[in-house]
Amino acid sequence: MREAYHEQLDALFDDLAAISVQVTKAVHDASRALLTSDAAIAETVISDDKEIDRAAESVEDAAFLLLSLQQPVAGDLRTIVAALRMVSELERMGDLSVHVAKIARLRVPEIAVPPQARPTLLRMATVAEEMVSRLGPIIGGRDVAAAEELELMDDEMDQLRVTTFSQLLVGEWTHGIESAVDIALLGRYYERIADHAVSVAHRVVFVVTGQHPVGVS
Amino acid sequence: MREAYHEQLDALFDDLAAISVQVTKAVHDASRALLTSDAAIAETVISDDKEIDRAAESVEDAAFLLLSLQQPVAGDLRTIVAALRMVSELERMGDLSVHVAKIARLRVPEIAVPPQARPTLLRMATVAEEMVSRLGPIIGGRDVAAAEELELMDDEMDQLRVTTFSQLLVGEWTHGIESAVDIALLGRYYERIADHAVSVAHRVVFVVTGQHPVGVS
Repeated sequence: MREAYHEQLDALFDDLAAISVQVTKAVHDASRALLTSDAAIAETVISDDKEIDRAAESVEDAAFLLLSLQQPVAGDLRTIVAALRMVSELERMGDLSVHVAKIARLRVPEIAVPPQARPTLLRMATVAEEMVSRLGPIIGGRDVAAAEELELMDDEMDQLRVTTFSQLLVGEWTHGIESAVDIALLGRYYERIADHAVSVAHRVVFVVTGQHPVGVS
Repeated sequence: MREAYHEQLDALFDDLAAISVQVTKAVHDASRALLTSDAAIAETVISDDKEIDRAAESVEDAAFLLLSLQQPVAGDLRTIVAALRMVSELERMGDLSVHVAKIARLRVPEIAVPPQARPTLLRMATVAEEMVSRLGPIIGGRDVAAAEELELMDDEMDQLRVTTFSQLLVGEWTHGIESAVDIALLGRYYERIADHAVSVAHRVVFVVTGQHPVGVS
């Protein structure tokens, strides 16, 4: 009985890892749609988000059933509550990818990101995708060391956000208001995707060690 | 024993209602700092967010303890899991108020919101504060009817967001890039505060009725 229970707990984390793979694809495709002005890919990101939502609901139901039937205490309880929070964060990262895809779609056939901002946004997209892609192995393998590395990548994301603001605000921005608003919001969306990735990684650290990572409340 | 348990469950909801009052103050003060360029009030919002975080942690600990010691099933389990989610949303609304306050602080002694955008932003601030202020009675009184009303207020917020975009993008914006970026981000922050308020209200409906509100997954 206890063994079957721990198998169910592992299955929960495997399902979370699988959702993180879906989210990685969403982030990748949204960025591709954005940087190449591809309406079809943008549509796919928007419509496929329902699948992420469904998968998230199914993990929530499984976690709830485990709480309800197994009456876990201490470490197991902490693990299931953490899983419930991780699934909310992953679902949110899917929503943020949809926001990126919608900006891409809104500007087709133009490319929402003008040449002046392209290197920074491309790097933001790359860092975000890389961070999300690491979550699968971090969650699946309960990899504390890899989880802690995400923090450093997030520092780069924060720096990139500052760079977008300087590009917009130093007075050399020649692409108009609409484009500036797009870049400001895109920067916010990528930053939030990265924040959620760090938060998911922190929850894995907490599940494994029982401690929040240093410097995190 | 069971009675003491249900008292603890009620206390959990009273604590959530109390946090929503703290968040209402944060939203109110952040908007005041924004619209009057008051650095001191902005600082208060930023520093007082720690108190919201602390209160949220204390509710999380209490919910965790209830899960752990009381081994609740069915409705009670659903209620405690909902409380854990509501506290995350309230904490996030505090963070978003800090974002508003930081934009206010960044532009002192100027006012971040130029006259052209002032009526819309003022209305957004008013709607956001009104929505958050209703959460206390909704949570404390498990008021399903009042919870459902928040949906209508959120429709107005979405419409206000569209209005800010038209003001920025119709080509009559005369206040420069910096100001446009501020307005776009402020619109996003207020919209998210409203989204979280609706989400908290939905969870109250779910706790009381066992059903998600119509049209909500």
